[in-house]
Amino acid sequence: MQADCSEKMIVFGVDIGGTITKLGVFKRGGEMLARHVFPTGSKEDGGVLEVVADKIREVLSRGSITADDVAGIGVGVPGIVTKGGVVVECANIDLKEVYLQEEFGKLLPEIQAPVRVGNNANAAALGEMYKGAGKGREDIVMVTVGTGLGAGIILNGQIVTGYHGSAGEIGHLMVNEEETVPCGCGHYGCLEQYIAAPGIVRAAQQLLKEHPEIPSPLRSYSGGGAEEDLTLPVGIVPPPMTVEAVFDAAHNGDEIAEFVIGRASTMLGKALAFVADFAAPEVIILGGRVSRASALMLDSVTDSYKRFVYPALAGIPIRLAALGSDAGMIGCDYMIEQCLYGDKP
Amino acid sequence: MQADCSEKMIVFGVDIGGTITKLGVFKRGGEMLARHVFPTGSKEDGGVLEVVADKIREVLSRGSITADDVAGIGVGVPGIVTKGGVVVECANIDLKEVYLQEEFGKLLPEIQAPVRVGNNANAAALGEMYKGAGKGREDIVMVTVGTGLGAGIILNGQIVTGYHGSAGEIGHLMVNEEETVPCGCGHYGCLEQYIAAPGIVRAAQQLLKEHPEIPSPLRSYSGGGAEEDLTLPVGIVPPPMTVEAVFDAAHNGDEIAEFVIGRASTMLGKALAFVADFAAPEVIILGGRVSRASALMLDSVTDSYKRFVYPALAGIPIRLAALGSDAGMIGCDYMIEQCLYGDKP
Repeated sequence: MQADCSEKMIVFGVDIGGTITKLGVFKRGGEMLARHVFPTGSKEDGGVLEVVADKIREVLSRGSITADDVAGIGVGVPGIVTKGGVVVECANIDLKEVYLQEEFGKLLPEIQAPVRVGNNANAAALGEMYKGAGKGREDIVMVTVGTGLGAGIILNGQIVTGYHGSAGEIGHLMVNEEETVPCGCGHYGCLEQYIAAPGIVRAAQQLLKEHPEIPSPLRSYSGGGAEEDLTLPVGIVPPPMTVEAVFDAAHNGDEIAEFVIGRASTMLGKALAFVADFAAPEVIILGGRVSRASALMLDSVTDSYKRFVYPALAGIPIRLAALGSDAGMIGCDYMIEQCLYGDKP
Repeated sequence: MQADCSEKMIVFGVDIGGTITKLGVFKRGGEMLARHVFPTGSKEDGGVLEVVADKIREVLSRGSITADDVAGIGVGVPGIVTKGGVVVECANIDLKEVYLQEEFGKLLPEIQAPVRVGNNANAAALGEMYKGAGKGREDIVMVTVGTGLGAGIILNGQIVTGYHGSAGEIGHLMVNEEETVPCGCGHYGCLEQYIAAPGIVRAAQQLLKEHPEIPSPLRSYSGGGAEEDLTLPVGIVPPPMTVEAVFDAAHNGDEIAEFVIGRASTMLGKALAFVADFAAPEVIILGGRVSRASALMLDSVTDSYKRFVYPALAGIPIRLAALGSDAGMIGCDYMIEQCLYGDKP
């Protein structure tokens, strides 16, 4: 299936997410020519990879690109991937124990080119290293704070996958042994219970309940006390409290929201200090919904980081991710660029 | 200076320590033919590297090995090393801003072969990966607990040097914000203040002082109360309390020593859990004087590790280092084997 692809000019970067898949068509060197976004496939519509193959075939059928132009396919998946390119399992999509090189060989026999695969947190980190906030570096850690908290790690220019593909699980650093609410992993007091979006919302809701005397705009949301608001018309359900609402309230000086965000930022800064003490990357990149919600958070995270980190490492910059949701596709493109050109495309 | 060395059969592995230097003569493939141990050089006797070069010349002068047989020189130094092979600085020896390849080229022009250099914590980790407790792996973390606490990190078969060569500074994870005694780094409450040898001794001395009612064999040591023992003849100074004495007391059931070692083990296990959550190595190796002092410690460190680590990673083995003080030399040999044979010799 593999051929000499050094003269071929097109790379497909496929970022397969839990709900949507993004297919980037790249010119060698990293220019994105087109972007296709579609629902991630399931068993019902033929399978995850079949849907990707159909979309690639559709792109090829338009005529401007032929199968012979394709230098490679880079793929990111939301799950565990071995160094050898086997997808072991994915939590939310139907992809398990598949060797992608072989599978794409069957699905798209007309494309004679390498297939590379990585976990999509790592793919996003690669993307940020290639074209974004980590450009020009080869040791970066990208921490994504969203529904959960995890890290994509690139050291010596290579993805660190770790034992069972489990590197980067820093959301499960145990930071509070007194916690009584369990984390999804079964432990109590994991970092992501306080910093990821649900944890921030939960903390705000708890403080609102414990301090009914403090006025707050967050009281109009679900869990903020709105359920008990007898002035609401019957049948009207208060909107769910989002992490964005908590950030907005903090920006407007709300005492409870400021406290919750302040505490989360301090904990995140301390966790990043631990990461730096261990790996000493050239840059730490913050991505994900929670990081995007507030530039304010970046400052307080950085302050906390500097307070806790080994003094010689205080100069490591902490930056917001630059590529948004394109990072994964760009990282998938990079996997191919890297395998064709060597370490430095 | 570099030549094709693929047919040459001898490698020098030079582990330069703060007080002694070890020179291993290896046959390609890793067999150690001879070991020379001598005081690390200083400005007074010509310089650190000059003394190494003299010793190498002495080995060559014996006639069984010629300069043409030398496939390379691997060097470990107690300091900061860039990826490019420049020794930036060393805390305790006179070696600063030196590009070793060039320097050995001048000192030993008869040897036409590559010179590789790494920090000696990383060299020891490479050695353990090549021939010791991490044999057959390519993702290992070796934590050395002695006078200080640091980690040598090998991921994807490569040393992780990090920003300014500072990766692995896990002795400075801040674990106790209430601490009032400063660490050498200027912070308060760093991990190594509790787990490294001086921290264990200090903790025992403090408890002995706080609990004069508890009998303990440690009271006969300095700082254990022996200074106030009026039955000691005038002029007799009690022996210094060592970490080995504290371990011995713990083995014999001493309450204070057991408490101190138990607490240190728990903290170390938790720190290793943090390391695993981040990097998920295939094996964690414990080296250094404190680790060697007690097999008992390994069990309690492992228990604590399992309690704190992300559940999927509880199976990562924690092992004692297997090569003792030879690890550094063997790792230096491996640096050359790796650069000649590629990643897997």
